[in-house]
Amino acid sequence: MTAASGGAGPPQPFAIGLLGHGTVGSAFASLLAARADAIATATGRRPEVRGMLTRSGGSFEEILSGADAIVELMGGVEPAREYALETLRAGKALVTANKQLLSQHGDELLAAARANGAQLRYEAAVAGVVPVIRVMRESFAGAHIEKVHGIVNGTTNYVLTEMARTGATYREALARAQELGYAEADPAEDVNGKDAAAKMAILARLAFHASVGLEDVPFEGIEAITPDDIDYAKEFGLVLKLLGVAERRDGGVSVRVFPCFIYGGHPLASVVGPFNAVTLESPAITEVTLSGPGAGGPQTASAVLGDVVSVMSSQGMDLDPIEELRFIPGEEVESAFYLHLEVADKPGVLAQIAKILGDNEVSVKSVVQKGMGDNARLVMVVHPVAEGRFNTAVRDISKLALLRAAPRAIRVIEEEFVS
Amino acid sequence: MTAASGGAGPPQPFAIGLLGHGTVGSAFASLLAARADAIATATGRRPEVRGMLTRSGGSFEEILSGADAIVELMGGVEPAREYALETLRAGKALVTANKQLLSQHGDELLAAARANGAQLRYEAAVAGVVPVIRVMRESFAGAHIEKVHGIVNGTTNYVLTEMARTGATYREALARAQELGYAEADPAEDVNGKDAAAKMAILARLAFHASVGLEDVPFEGIEAITPDDIDYAKEFGLVLKLLGVAERRDGGVSVRVFPCFIYGGHPLASVVGPFNAVTLESPAITEVTLSGPGAGGPQTASAVLGDVVSVMSSQGMDLDPIEELRFIPGEEVESAFYLHLEVADKPGVLAQIAKILGDNEVSVKSVVQKGMGDNARLVMVVHPVAEGRFNTAVRDISKLALLRAAPRAIRVIEEEFVS
Repeated sequence: MTAASGGAGPPQPFAIGLLGHGTVGSAFASLLAARADAIATATGRRPEVRGMLTRSGGSFEEILSGADAIVELMGGVEPAREYALETLRAGKALVTANKQLLSQHGDELLAAARANGAQLRYEAAVAGVVPVIRVMRESFAGAHIEKVHGIVNGTTNYVLTEMARTGATYREALARAQELGYAEADPAEDVNGKDAAAKMAILARLAFHASVGLEDVPFEGIEAITPDDIDYAKEFGLVLKLLGVAERRDGGVSVRVFPCFIYGGHPLASVVGPFNAVTLESPAITEVTLSGPGAGGPQTASAVLGDVVSVMSSQGMDLDPIEELRFIPGEEVESAFYLHLEVADKPGVLAQIAKILGDNEVSVKSVVQKGMGDNARLVMVVHPVAEGRFNTAVRDISKLALLRAAPRAIRVIEEEFVS
Repeated sequence: MTAASGGAGPPQPFAIGLLGHGTVGSAFASLLAARADAIATATGRRPEVRGMLTRSGGSFEEILSGADAIVELMGGVEPAREYALETLRAGKALVTANKQLLSQHGDELLAAARANGAQLRYEAAVAGVVPVIRVMRESFAGAHIEKVHGIVNGTTNYVLTEMARTGATYREALARAQELGYAEADPAEDVNGKDAAAKMAILARLAFHASVGLEDVPFEGIEAITPDDIDYAKEFGLVLKLLGVAERRDGGVSVRVFPCFIYGGHPLASVVGPFNAVTLESPAITEVTLSGPGAGGPQTASAVLGDVVSVMSSQGMDLDPIEELRFIPGEEVESAFYLHLEVADKPGVLAQIAKILGDNEVSVKSVVQKGMGDNARLVMVVHPVAEGRFNTAVRDISKLALLRAAPRAIRVIEEEFVS
């Protein structure tokens, strides 16, 4: 613990250059003003915004020269990237909430930070106020993390929660999310999984101490999910979530984002609405889950302020890229699946489907069959199998003459939560 | 980020003096050995155990003089307190997992740390590997925390989970916990709530930046809980947990431990078995929950190692006592309650009970009445009311001639989890 300001007189200022003054930027400035005295008592220096770059004015060079640290809340890749690099090259600390920047230019930024002995902190870039970055970098710096998975996009979690709760369609639930401010006017990158993929790239880099970028993370979204999928799966006790999963497997790693069923007793099943949650797994820690609001101006501002306080009181630490890892192709990864088929209700149908599944080594765990006039609905959950094999089976099934609609397949996390 | 060891040659050692070599001590030594190279890469120094104090040998003075930091895993108050103070007075960092020490002598230890510019870290003292201490000290250093509550004792959470799952009695479930290593041979301080109270004192101190000790935390345990209590409450959708609650209320604070019902949709309801979970609430962060295994040698060792890495890479920071707070007496705190009564099944019974409740401003939220031969069972949940008033009402009810058994009352957290 550092002693607070020792001698007489007011504490020395800690000058912050603020880039961007939108929702998060102005929330940060307000929170900083409200908490500056308490932080001064703790750290011996009083943080204050000394310069601000907005759309209408300000000179980055002037702001940088007068700042002890830069807080970047502009968003987007350029010019944020250029300013971030200049800050780090000047040996000054950078705090940012910019997930695009980190997931697309992480190697470059971390190298600049390391080369210049500058701190780079980005808690607010992933899962809002949920302090998963700090916990990975510091608390579990001594642990060998095997898997990071969770719900890292609040918009899609709100939409899926609302669909399950009310039976609303995807469109209806998304409109409601927009009304409540949980989805942006253009929600494309949230609902297609790209936003979650950027966050998983950032988490995977930290977890595996390896270079992972957005381009390494295949993603699927929730645009095609129907209320029927959610309804039928309830019969198996399943709840749908958009999950990000980063894990070590067979000497490589797999980092992906996809909609997925989990059992009702799974800890992530109770994460509802716009909340985020991330579970870290390692032999040394078993598993630790962190959850909380995924976004929102005040929450993001609070995460940024926590980073600023850390910059003021710490030298920082970095466990970044030391491992070279192989990214495992999706078709080699084993997953369990939910499979929904509509077929002609004729003798021999189930036998034909079962043969295709068996030929591809897909083993059925549970199945429900229901008549619907001339047709029947077959809903099943299959045991984990290499995704390539499963995809081949589904492709073969979709060629059957007796099929009445395109097959629908969604991954399932099999583990029940055992006490 | 500090650069890793710059020049040629092996990294400088970072010498750790280890006090205690029981389950946690030996798990820590193993984990440290396994992770030392990775930590050296990150911090530029290689941590190693340089001296060890066990029951059978070692000189504390020698160990201290050769150490960069002391890791105290002996447990108990003396001589741990004396060694801790000597370490801090020597200006050296202390990492400890000792909740008794911190909850009973926190003021003294923090003052010694501050006076000597020494770091004091104690993540493993609360909730095992769940990094709640770091998150409060660092991530939310800029937030004004209003409330900390959660499940901070894994033994009791296992026992309550097992009772609910199997219908076992308290004794049976406790015996099973002992078999599985989730309860000690002498579980008294776990089951009576004192262990949880010590942890809540530590959390409340950090949350409120105020002096809070074990003596400030009234506690109740789970020894008197019956399978019936758990069963009847299921009709209201309630689940029983031993909760620690620290909150600001009316210009003061209340820090308490008690068994308590929560609704099934509450995030803490899915925390089962020996797991711990802590929820932090503040206007700036809304709420953040951290959960994971509450204890176990490897998990505790991992938390200790995280602290060691922080000591090696940081100057530390301290937001400790700056506020003077009033502790609010329990009878002034408002709580909702579950109330279980067995009464003679005669006309006018409910009216008499309702009158006593009404006279004491206790308002019934829901009630279930069931006949049992000549007697009836009345189970109700009442709205929040000052606990003093509720206790008066129960005392008056217990004097009624028509009562067939002592009334049973358990607090209820009313809030449903709303998305």
